[in-house]
Amino acid sequence: MTAVEDTPDATSLMPTLAGEYYTSADIFAAEQERVFEEMWFCSVRSADLETPGAFRRVTVGRESVLVVRGRDGALRAFLNVCRHRGAMICTEESGQVKRNLQCPYHAWTYGLDGKLIAAPNLASLKDDSGADLDRVAWGLIPVALREWLGYAWLCLADEPPPFEDDVIGAVTERLGTAEAVGHYGVDGLALGHREVYDVAANWKLIVENFMECYHCATIHPELTEVLPEFADGLAAQYFVGHGAEFGEEVRGFTVDGSDGFESLPGLDPDQDRRYYAITIKPTVFVNLVPDHVIVHRMFPMSADRTVVECDWLYAPDVVAAGADTARSVELFHRVNVQDFDACERTQPAMSSRAYRNGGVLVPAEHHIGDFHAWLNERLSLREGRRPVGH
Amino acid sequence: MTAVEDTPDATSLMPTLAGEYYTSADIFAAEQERVFEEMWFCSVRSADLETPGAFRRVTVGRESVLVVRGRDGALRAFLNVCRHRGAMICTEESGQVKRNLQCPYHAWTYGLDGKLIAAPNLASLKDDSGADLDRVAWGLIPVALREWLGYAWLCLADEPPPFEDDVIGAVTERLGTAEAVGHYGVDGLALGHREVYDVAANWKLIVENFMECYHCATIHPELTEVLPEFADGLAAQYFVGHGAEFGEEVRGFTVDGSDGFESLPGLDPDQDRRYYAITIKPTVFVNLVPDHVIVHRMFPMSADRTVVECDWLYAPDVVAAGADTARSVELFHRVNVQDFDACERTQPAMSSRAYRNGGVLVPAEHHIGDFHAWLNERLSLREGRRPVGH
Amino acid sequence: MTAVEDTPDATSLMPTLAGEYYTSADIFAAEQERVFEEMWFCSVRSADLETPGAFRRVTVGRESVLVVRGRDGALRAFLNVCRHRGAMICTEESGQVKRNLQCPYHAWTYGLDGKLIAAPNLASLKDDSGADLDRVAWGLIPVALREWLGYAWLCLADEPPPFEDDVIGAVTERLGTAEAVGHYGVDGLALGHREVYDVAANWKLIVENFMECYHCATIHPELTEVLPEFADGLAAQYFVGHGAEFGEEVRGFTVDGSDGFESLPGLDPDQDRRYYAITIKPTVFVNLVPDHVIVHRMFPMSADRTVVECDWLYAPDVVAAGADTARSVELFHRVNVQDFDACERTQPAMSSRAYRNGGVLVPAEHHIGDFHAWLNERLSLREGRRPVGH
Repeated sequence: MTAVEDTPDATSLMPTLAGEYYTSADIFAAEQERVFEEMWFCSVRSADLETPGAFRRVTVGRESVLVVRGRDGALRAFLNVCRHRGAMICTEESGQVKRNLQCPYHAWTYGLDGKLIAAPNLASLKDDSGADLDRVAWGLIPVALREWLGYAWLCLADEPPPFEDDVIGAVTERLGTAEAVGHYGVDGLALGHREVYDVAANWKLIVENFMECYHCATIHPELTEVLPEFADGLAAQYFVGHGAEFGEEVRGFTVDGSDGFESLPGLDPDQDRRYYAITIKPTVFVNLVPDHVIVHRMFPMSADRTVVECDWLYAPDVVAAGADTARSVELFHRVNVQDFDACERTQPAMSSRAYRNGGVLVPAEHHIGDFHAWLNERLSLREGRRPVGH
Repeated sequence: MTAVEDTPDATSLMPTLAGEYYTSADIFAAEQERVFEEMWFCSVRSADLETPGAFRRVTVGRESVLVVRGRDGALRAFLNVCRHRGAMICTEESGQVKRNLQCPYHAWTYGLDGKLIAAPNLASLKDDSGADLDRVAWGLIPVALREWLGYAWLCLADEPPPFEDDVIGAVTERLGTAEAVGHYGVDGLALGHREVYDVAANWKLIVENFMECYHCATIHPELTEVLPEFADGLAAQYFVGHGAEFGEEVRGFTVDGSDGFESLPGLDPDQDRRYYAITIKPTVFVNLVPDHVIVHRMFPMSADRTVVECDWLYAPDVVAAGADTARSVELFHRVNVQDFDACERTQPAMSSRAYRNGGVLVPAEHHIGDFHAWLNERLSLREGRRPVGH
Repeated sequence: MTAVEDTPDATSLMPTLAGEYYTSADIFAAEQERVFEEMWFCSVRSADLETPGAFRRVTVGRESVLVVRGRDGALRAFLNVCRHRGAMICTEESGQVKRNLQCPYHAWTYGLDGKLIAAPNLASLKDDSGADLDRVAWGLIPVALREWLGYAWLCLADEPPPFEDDVIGAVTERLGTAEAVGHYGVDGLALGHREVYDVAANWKLIVENFMECYHCATIHPELTEVLPEFADGLAAQYFVGHGAEFGEEVRGFTVDGSDGFESLPGLDPDQDRRYYAITIKPTVFVNLVPDHVIVHRMFPMSADRTVVECDWLYAPDVVAAGADTARSVELFHRVNVQDFDACERTQPAMSSRAYRNGGVLVPAEHHIGDFHAWLNERLSLREGRRPVGH
């Protein structure tokens, strides 16, 4: 086992970010601009959009984005704004159009590929040079989209960063090899359960909470029962390639340690009876256990509010057979509620004079410092912004 | 027919205002100061205040204004603020006082003409020079008021602009003559129905929507049935003096084209079987049809919220007889709902990067550019403010 | 009787603060910093926390403060923020812990004296110099606390101002002697009734209202019946040492002038049958009558919202006997409702152009000018801030 970083002083207390990072509307705006709108942002489960014309509307940073299945079977994403006078093309959360995307205000009509295909008097409209309108240039504004692990990842940047480095690389770095996650066949799994949590806390508190296990003994009795080493408080993500082992008596990753389902077919023997937690910055958590995968997607709404959508994914035959997933789902649902409660009771103190210069990280939390350094680097991009706090 | 302006390039796309005009609290504050509080603002229907002491409280820009019927029968308007310690004189939306306007905090008492007439120990109070208080100078602060078309128009400016130019002139410019509106005898009509709409959109989106008919074919099926030329999308207000003609089969301006009421007595023959829409900037729409008049008054509350009060006015004998106005009211009520829905689905996109530089106006909407130019000119008054956007 | 200040011109009108003092978020923030967080702030009734481990959570300025009864019987106050990662120690309004204050996130545990006494792996944590953590330095951050009149007064300043001058001195100045308030034995009284009011008004409007009686004849019929001299409108607090005398027919300080309870044992004869009102800046009112004491504590929440907690205190045997205090409580409860209504109808006008430069104080209100001067002085402390308004 290799520690993620050298920890020259394994006993000292490291400073956290200053309190204002979790409360300032200005810093949240900077995060929207330089984090959520410039990085790959996991938005929609691909399988939620099955047939051509199926769409879902998601918020990425400050933008409403339409993800839609094309007639050719491909997923595409567009800003949800008509090019004419700006009406939203779709106001429903999700739905199905018959053939095209039509603005209901003046009937400007776009193909599922975004191209402008009709509008009242379109033939007589000319551009500045007097030419007919270019149907692509006047189409819906496209948003970069990549599919991976069965999800559509979007990027609003003009030049998206390399997906292989930022997204796939984060998983490889955590698991130790590029192949490890592939054994779970995540993009072939089926959705067994979905839960949406509206959390009154800054998204970074949720990330920090997920990254450390110093709190596990205190607030996660069921999880610690299943994964006894979590009682020691060492971070689930502290060691490269390491997954926490199930307790000897534990038969499955369930709320009471009772049987789960058959292990997913492609697993390595050393992936069985283990739990792997992965953070893909900025807003995704992937949790791997032998018989299912749990994926969290965060949607930061304001400095003090984050919506979290959590999917429980199983082998397709488990879902098709209508198997009872209740005890399996209940374990991590309780973990979620316990964690989000902790985040919500932390948020109010972020504005206290007691947290003006932040709090401290104990050694088992030191790797959270990397997350803070990474954030400060992103926020200082472009304009040489001086990081706030320490 | 004369077009409102020369349109040298009847096919090109013109830019709209930038998105921030519809979302910025700063620009809304500037509009309150330089538009709603400096122009004539249509507030209250005069006939709503019948007897001496009847009052209504209205919001003009950022001010609460009291409009009250005097003992002499005249309407007057005052800031709704006691001169002593600032309590609101009236907190009810409307009502009737017996004799005077008395502040319920310390009993400072004002006549219906605003003059200070009583206060505890008033006789012993002296001004800076030691003289008795001047009862007029220490009266309620008056607001300029003009009555026209049966409504009280208020102006908070120290020197109100010429009513004849700004208000009456707008109607003349649209109808072609100063007399045309007089034929409808609007100030003698009776209120048949009133509807209040709370619209989650910037007031300018509502103005722009009212000014153009490019959307009519798409969202107004009933209106287009009654006024077939609206299906062509040419603006109702595009040509000076032009009113849209009823369809051949149409018997009245009703939701199903069935009979309306007798035409108003003073109409010119060429005003019969026609619909005229008039925008009186900043916040009033007047709709003239042969047997009734529809008046919209907007009350902008914030950058993204506007309350619209809409009156349906009929000949007094129609209202007195209790005639069934349901089909007549239903037509424009549907139009209102359709329009305000469109505005509400446009508002959210105003903050999108897709609308950072605005959208486009097709030729049938080019006259909206005049509205934008007018607004920019008003906002740049006084302090040489540089217009935002194009 | 000595007037509080010379009033060289007893008939003139004095200006009040400008309207923005009551609406500006910036001025409210300055008040939080320089008034509520630097002065002694009356927070909790000591007797509410009887046994060791009893706590109450209060908001002082922008801080959540925990007041807790120690094992040694002493009250102490701490910022309600864990030193580790900032979670709130207590989220309930009040309660009782068994032995210690434990953060429910990572189980850092503090004694009732604030000292850090346990944490997972605490023994292995070291400070920057490599030494064991100092349990006091890493304890909960203490807040200065003084008990007087049966209440815990808190001060967040690094160097609290002299309690004797700022708090006790205010009472002495009003009553004329340092001993006068002692005759009521306030800290030995028992709580008969508590009422909490959520007032949509700036805290200073509530102070100003309490300081003057020019409004009494208008809005306080019951109070004026009991205290006839209040009908003259002279301020209850205008003359040093003066208490308003009960009317001749009045038998007690009750809503209908009926009998109250026996006078408190220590009263001077000249304190019997009299009402004394005292303002202890910034947020406390004390009302003394022969048989009970009424204490108002304000909790300013924003520029336009103030929570007021009002206690009715009686001799312990009155409360122990379960005596009927309804008519006694009802009198000042009505006064409170009448006053807070007046403040709420004043708040909206503070943003009007009519109050841009404020209103006026009549001679019977001139002493409110001292409050305004005092506030301006506090706000201009430290950074030579130029007072707003007159």
